[in-house]
Amino acid sequence: MKKVSGPTIGRLSLYLRLLLELRDAGVSTVSSEELAVRSGTTAAQVRKDLSLFGTFGKRGLGYEVGQLESRLRGILGLGRRWGVVLVGAGRIGAALFGYETFRRQGFHIEAVFDADPSKVGEQWNGLEVQADERMEEVVSEAGIEIAVIAVPARSAQGVADRLVAAGVRGILNFAPTRLKVPSGVEVKSVDMALEMEGLSYALTNAGGNGGGA
Amino acid sequence: MKKVSGPTIGRLSLYLRLLLELRDAGVSTVSSEELAVRSGTTAAQVRKDLSLFGTFGKRGLGYEVGQLESRLRGILGLGRRWGVVLVGAGRIGAALFGYETFRRQGFHIEAVFDADPSKVGEQWNGLEVQADERMEEVVSEAGIEIAVIAVPARSAQGVADRLVAAGVRGILNFAPTRLKVPSGVEVKSVDMALEMEGLSYALTNAGGNGGGA
Repeated sequence: MKKVSGPTIGRLSLYLRLLLELRDAGVSTVSSEELAVRSGTTAAQVRKDLSLFGTFGKRGLGYEVGQLESRLRGILGLGRRWGVVLVGAGRIGAALFGYETFRRQGFHIEAVFDADPSKVGEQWNGLEVQADERMEEVVSEAGIEIAVIAVPARSAQGVADRLVAAGVRGILNFAPTRLKVPSGVEVKSVDMALEMEGLSYALTNAGGNGGGA
Repeated sequence: MKKVSGPTIGRLSLYLRLLLELRDAGVSTVSSEELAVRSGTTAAQVRKDLSLFGTFGKRGLGYEVGQLESRLRGILGLGRRWGVVLVGAGRIGAALFGYETFRRQGFHIEAVFDADPSKVGEQWNGLEVQADERMEEVVSEAGIEIAVIAVPARSAQGVADRLVAAGVRGILNFAPTRLKVPSGVEVKSVDMALEMEGLSYALTNAGGNGGGA
């Protein structure tokens, strides 16, 4: 498999979403133009992205929806079930625990941990919040490869180090801090405050009314 | 003000976070090296980023923490209070409503809307969840410029169109879909499922064990 850029992978995810909707709507073929409009890109980019993986539409017919869907699932690693642990049972953890889109794509939260004794023992949809001391044991026994970190910034690096030592290879990080991990471990960060500050920057420095600074 | 890239703005946010911590810890100067380590970049990049805004450290002394903090706040548009509306009173909306980091940086959620009559009337920390019909009126009367969208994907574009028509200029979008907005309106998207799929892609296609596809 060729080395593929992050933005390309992001677009493949967007194409896949559209395909799922089309399939649900009973549509059987889709053009690169349709895929492009929905993903905020061009038809040429769609064709280039898909040709990277040896997937080609038919001239005048486009792509077969079911076939392209299963191809993209395979490429994105969605053709299987992923066990996930969630560390941090606060408000953000709770929202992620209930996030349907994760489950629909095969990401299943199998254990929830928190360092706060008052949270330990809570029942979340039949799953008991566990003390974070149990984290390594659960991760390594269940062979879990993906963790979601939703703890305060000051605790996040320590949690990440322990998860990686126990065998986690992918981390989705919601703590507003940068995590350092060894090579071979992948981190994706969701930094809501940073995105919000990108908005206030843009609004403050918009042409014509650049006040505030 | 020069045109500055998104990644640069993101780094400025990270520098600001470190400065806040340093100030709380009573530290009064910081080197470009320290700022770099924490932000996952190089000292040269830090100096380049800050020089864009005419901010220069002193050789051998570095940057004065309080001064750089207030400079960055100004640049990022954080030297003021931002009124924000939240559309979508589900789990993700609730997590965002309680997200301390937003408030600390001056983003205040002043109204919450939902289309679901069973949610309307709920009290969220003294704020009543309102019917989404009231959205335009509240936004335009209060002159609110930033909105957080946390509704299902199928409703997000319609909500965005109404918010923009009412005067919103910045949208933080949590719905797993791309929003189209007129030029002059800024959208930042937080797409958790897309990040998660980036992880499964990386794990599936990691060197040596690229199975699954």
